[in-house]
Amino acid sequence: MVYLHKVQYYETDKMGVVHHSNYIRWFEEARTELLAHIGVPYDRLENEGIMSPVVAVECGYERPARFGDTVKIDVRLSEVGNVRITFDYVVFDYETGERRVAGKSRHCFTNMDGAPISLKRERPELFKILMESAQK
Amino acid sequence: MVYLHKVQYYETDKMGVVHHSNYIRWFEEARTELLAHIGVPYDRLENEGIMSPVVAVECGYERPARFGDTVKIDVRLSEVGNVRITFDYVVFDYETGERRVAGKSRHCFTNMDGAPISLKRERPELFKILMESAQK
Amino acid sequence: MVYLHKVQYYETDKMGVVHHSNYIRWFEEARTELLAHIGVPYDRLENEGIMSPVVAVECGYERPARFGDTVKIDVRLSEVGNVRITFDYVVFDYETGERRVAGKSRHCFTNMDGAPISLKRERPELFKILMESAQK
Amino acid sequence: MVYLHKVQYYETDKMGVVHHSNYIRWFEEARTELLAHIGVPYDRLENEGIMSPVVAVECGYERPARFGDTVKIDVRLSEVGNVRITFDYVVFDYETGERRVAGKSRHCFTNMDGAPISLKRERPELFKILMESAQK
Repeated sequence: MVYLHKVQYYETDKMGVVHHSNYIRWFEEARTELLAHIGVPYDRLENEGIMSPVVAVECGYERPARFGDTVKIDVRLSEVGNVRITFDYVVFDYETGERRVAGKSRHCFTNMDGAPISLKRERPELFKILMESAQK
Repeated sequence: MVYLHKVQYYETDKMGVVHHSNYIRWFEEARTELLAHIGVPYDRLENEGIMSPVVAVECGYERPARFGDTVKIDVRLSEVGNVRITFDYVVFDYETGERRVAGKSRHCFTNMDGAPISLKRERPELFKILMESAQK
Repeated sequence: MVYLHKVQYYETDKMGVVHHSNYIRWFEEARTELLAHIGVPYDRLENEGIMSPVVAVECGYERPARFGDTVKIDVRLSEVGNVRITFDYVVFDYETGERRVAGKSRHCFTNMDGAPISLKRERPELFKILMESAQK
Repeated sequence: MVYLHKVQYYETDKMGVVHHSNYIRWFEEARTELLAHIGVPYDRLENEGIMSPVVAVECGYERPARFGDTVKIDVRLSEVGNVRITFDYVVFDYETGERRVAGKSRHCFTNMDGAPISLKRERPELFKILMESAQK
């Protein structure tokens, strides 16, 4: 899926470009949109008593985005395991198509007390939706 | 009370100075410390089922703080009413003593469902501590 | 003008709602869009050697926005003086139309060294555009 | 080196714990302090016309930090190459010593126009300081 984000002034730092921590936040924006798009929005997860915390994140910075740019984020559910799922992200400049950043985030599933659960066993219907999305 | 904050790189923007929204966050840091200092820390409030959301904030910007500066925040509980309290803040450069920013925040008290409560009636012992702090 | 913002997970805090500092950032988003819309985008200002720092901000919080909400921000250039301009903002829930927050920000104009300038004298054509926008 | 950070309310999210993007910011705080400590503070770098942007970051989340916690960050300059340096971070709870998060950040050196430079060739005296710090 493709997600667009307009770069804001408050996302820049004194180097004159976007502060590197913000790409991690944009990954979250894109992932939220992807999950809503495939029919597993965050609020459905939370209504069913499931949270999906980040267990790892990585990001490689190629060229900086700047205030006023629009970036295009290609987001993909790349792996769905019994207890963990992985998203891949590539951030491009929307106008030029030039790559900016690429990254991954890995997530587990927990109940509302934070105890890890197997989505496959506890919510097979949600697991199925994620599996099908990952195969595309 | 006096609270110190070291200005971080991620708090700057492309103007080369601290982004104006961050002073509002520093007010929160200073207020948290003041409340802990007088014996009403946030976690005590939350353990007693009380939240204290911000109902208004204002901030006047005189001179910008910069990366690497340490700022000194004079924070004071300036008004304690039955349902609202007000904090005053003045931010100075720690080294030169030059003023940077001055502001206020006003807060109410609510229960965990977000319904407003009168602290004076429902937690007179906490109300008393706040009143005594405000008179100093 | 009306500006829309989708509330992100990273904008919430442990009270379960949007952290109060973020509305100040949304004001900036809306103001940026308004300035671009009337033909005085930030990058035009900066290309002409002009910055427009915030000199004061105020915000009254009525009801909190939540993750997943879309908010609609009514933004208006309400005052244009020789050295200062003021924007007014009202934030509504996009679906229900319920008010969330209302605020103001005041700005001056400076050259790239941060020295205040009179826009009316130094950039009369920009000043005229702002005046005309404010009268609407 | 050890760096301490007090967890702020505005760093939490609606899961009730610190939002995962903030650890990346704390890495920056710790790195800034380490560089100042060994005699290569950011402002010295910038005065000499050198910037040190992040080229990659990774972070593994073990247990979340919470509002009011103090975290202790072990930060170390783990690799110094001709064009890149790497920092390692481990975040612990200050009181219990329990691990929270571990990560890395990799950086290059550029001139003020953003063109990569070899620190070893262009600033051998700074390169030497970094090398010596990395060997500890």
